[in-house]
This record gives sequence, structure tokens and C-alpha cells, in this order.
Amino acid sequence: MNEHTIINPLLTDGSLFLSNISVDNVIFGYHDKSLKVLLLHPTAIKKWALPGGYIYKDETIENAAIRVAKDRTGLDNLYFKQCKFYSDPNRTKDEEFNTQKLEDMTGYKLGKDHWIFNQHISSCFYTLTDYSKVTPQGDYYASECLWFSINDLPPLMFDHKKMIKDALDILRIHLYHFPVGYELLPEKFTIPEIHSLYETLLNKSLDVRNFTKKLLKVGIVDKLDERKNIGAHRAPFLYKFNKDVYQDALENGMALFI
Amino acid sequence: MNEHTIINPLLTDGSLFLSNISVDNVIFGYHDKSLKVLLLHPTAIKKWALPGGYIYKDETIENAAIRVAKDRTGLDNLYFKQCKFYSDPNRTKDEEFNTQKLEDMTGYKLGKDHWIFNQHISSCFYTLTDYSKVTPQGDYYASECLWFSINDLPPLMFDHKKMIKDALDILRIHLYHFPVGYELLPEKFTIPEIHSLYETLLNKSLDVRNFTKKLLKVGIVDKLDERKNIGAHRAPFLYKFNKDVYQDALENGMALFI
Repeated sequence: MNEHTIINPLLTDGSLFLSNISVDNVIFGYHDKSLKVLLLHPTAIKKWALPGGYIYKDETIENAAIRVAKDRTGLDNLYFKQCKFYSDPNRTKDEEFNTQKLEDMTGYKLGKDHWIFNQHISSCFYTLTDYSKVTPQGDYYASECLWFSINDLPPLMFDHKKMIKDALDILRIHLYHFPVGYELLPEKFTIPEIHSLYETLLNKSLDVRNFTKKLLKVGIVDKLDERKNIGAHRAPFLYKFNKDVYQDALENGMALFI
Repeated sequence: MNEHTIINPLLTDGSLFLSNISVDNVIFGYHDKSLKVLLLHPTAIKKWALPGGYIYKDETIENAAIRVAKDRTGLDNLYFKQCKFYSDPNRTKDEEFNTQKLEDMTGYKLGKDHWIFNQHISSCFYTLTDYSKVTPQGDYYASECLWFSINDLPPLMFDHKKMIKDALDILRIHLYHFPVGYELLPEKFTIPEIHSLYETLLNKSLDVRNFTKKLLKVGIVDKLDERKNIGAHRAPFLYKFNKDVYQDALENGMALFI
């Protein structure tokens, strides 16, 4: 995807990177009816932050999002979607985040003219993965990296709280137009399993019969001639994503529930 | 909205603007079952272009989009929505667009190191207006400014064709989640009028009874106790947007057709 080795931007003069623009990643994690988001804790700052970084001049912004996620959290193979850009000229003027704090934290002599303190428009991306399958890790800059329930977020720096809210709004709109679930459900799953996924992501109740009818109508799932044994007298049918229809819908959209 | 007077970026050293980032506006125009997009024709270039520009360091990117639209086309009071960002490092390496051409065109001695030739990520916005109500005008850089049918676009420079396609895809998704029409229809309109608007924008047929039922259900239109006389024995009821519901849906979304 890219050939950049991990470097610490604090130790560079910034000339490798595009000026005035950065990326921030909202990495949502789903597992068993629970939706979380991945946050970093910069060592000497009281607030938490989204995993973010800068863009090399020879890479696309999408590849920067993927690289930053990998470098800062260890998460690989994530498929990011663009969200929004954040451009308030005062967006990074956070009282908790200043040169002195950063110097104390890192031990580097940065100075207030260091390029990372320049004005940056942030371009925000989101992705959705199964949080039970990944063990996030911190980096040179943030010792802690943890999953938080989206209903119980810690204090966040800059405009990162708004980014998470906006990404969730966009994810919810996308659920009506693009398929999800391929990496979040077992290869063969029951209707209650995929129904719970959608209810959790949308944070609302969906009539299960209507939901199933729509799912089958758009063709992203196929009903199998096979049942899951989950206890006495309970053996719901299993379903499976139709890979071709799913892939086509990912690229060209679909109209689920519509 | 902003206090910047119109200046010609070609005549500046770029220090007023953010580096490496620009805006491009996809201005859609609707009127009477027809959907168009506004394009500029840079004088000495064979291709057409979206109205775009640079971002002052003290403004937000949304305000830059609004200002650029006003400066370059004379269109005011447009409500822009964010689309996508375009970041291919080679995106502006268009054979039609080079220093010499630009110098010939403008009469300025720019030189190949002029800051406008730096790498720029473009942040793209779209808006939708009534094209019959506006007379677009060119600027210092582009003598022609015209509405084109989205089905009959001229050759476009850089990645502007992709921007229009993507903006249309995003507009179509937004139609299911945000209201449109306030500036595009008369204050009192018939069902055929609003139905044509949606069919034109979505480029597909919508069952008129189902469409009307959904519209009334989400509450963005109210049926009036008044008819429009459009000929012998034909007097359809008039409808009107419910301003409060419309405004709330603009801010918080809704689920039309869902």
C-alpha cells in the first residue's frame, strides 16, 4: 500500500509532508451488540485523541489514513471511508496541548515554531472493524490505545468529539446505501446476528420481518439450507453474504430499507 | 460571511492562503425537470473547469467555498455541503494546464515555481440552486461561465469530471436523508412538481402514490386547502413546505422513502 517506514514527525522539519493538512481516523469497532471507538492517550495530556497524522507528499490521503492507523495502532487492512474536513482556524488551540507540554512529554526541544504547530485542516476518515479480533498498541507519542464504548467517551482533545459524532452520523447514512458486516459476522450467521448488528449501529429498533425481507430483496445475503443449533428446539436458518452482490453494492451502492 | 475583498491569487505570493489545499465547487442547477452544473472556461485552456480557489488562513473551508462561488460566478447565498477530498499527487498534472499557457492567458510573468503550481489537495463541495434565477458571470481568469446539462458535459480539466460524478452520487444519497426543494419550487407547488424534482435528481422513476405518502409521513410538506387551476377539469391540490419540520430535517436528517 505504501513504502514509508515509521518516522516520528516531531523529529522532522515537515518538508516530507503536505503543509496545513492532516488526517484523523475514527476507527469504530463492533462485536456482539456493542459499538466502540479506538482512542489514543498522549502521555502528558489529560485528554484522549483519535489516531491521526500527516500526509507524505507522494501518497494519497486515503493511503495516509491507512498508514497512520497501522503505525499508531497496529491495525492493518482497514478500509477507510472519507467523512468530513475540519477547518476552523482555531481548531487546535486547545489549552491542554501546548509546546511546553509536548516538550515535557517527549523530551525533545521543539520550540513554538515547530511545523506541527502550524494550522492544519483535518481530513477525517472512518472505518468499522471487529474489536474482538485486534489488540491495539500505542506509539512513540501515545502510550495507551484503548477501545471505548461510543456511549461513554473520555474527554477528547481539539474537535475530536465532533469528529466521532459526525462519523457516526455518516456511518448511519451509509448503512442504508452500502453493505456492512463481512468482517463483523461469522461466515455463516443467523438473522438475529445480522439484525443485532444493524440495530446496534443504527441505535434503533428495526422490525425483524421487514428487515429480513429487504435484506433478501437487495440480494446481499443468501439463505442456506442449513441451520444453527443453539439449544433445545431452537435451530434458526443460517445465511451467508453473496460475495458478488456485496462487492457490487460496496462499489455502486444499493438501496437497503428503501 | 467574510470580509475578504476579491483578489487575484496569481498576483500574490500565496502567504495569505493555506498551502497544499484548495476548494472546488460543484454547483448543480435545477429547473423544470432539468439538472445542470455550472462550469468556467479558463480563457486559454481548451477544457472547462469547476469554480475553485484557495483558502485564506483566517477562514473556514466552508466560507472559502461560499466566497469562491461568489467571486467567480456572482452566485450568492449558496448553501454548500461537503463532498470529498481529492489527493492524487498527480491530480493537477494536466497537459493542457501549464505555466506557459497560463502566462499567455493572463499576461503575467508567473514562472514555474509560482505557488499555485504547488501540490494541492482539493476539498470538494456541492450545492443545488435554481438555474433560471441566476445569471452566472466569469472572472479575471475565466471569461465564460455557463450551465451545462449533466448529461452533456464538455471536456473537463484535472479530476473535475470525477468530482461531478461523485457529487451527484452524494447528492442522491443525501436526497434520502435531507430535504431539498425550498429554493427550487414555487412557494405553493403541486405533487407533480415536487415528484418531477425528485425523479430528475435521482434519475429514476418513483411511484407517485408511494412518494406522496412518504413525503406526508415525514411531514416536510403540508397539503393546502387550495387548488391550482391548470386547465379544463384539472385542478390539483397545492402543497407547501412545513418550514419547522424542513429546518429540523436539514439539521438532524430524516428518513425519506425509508
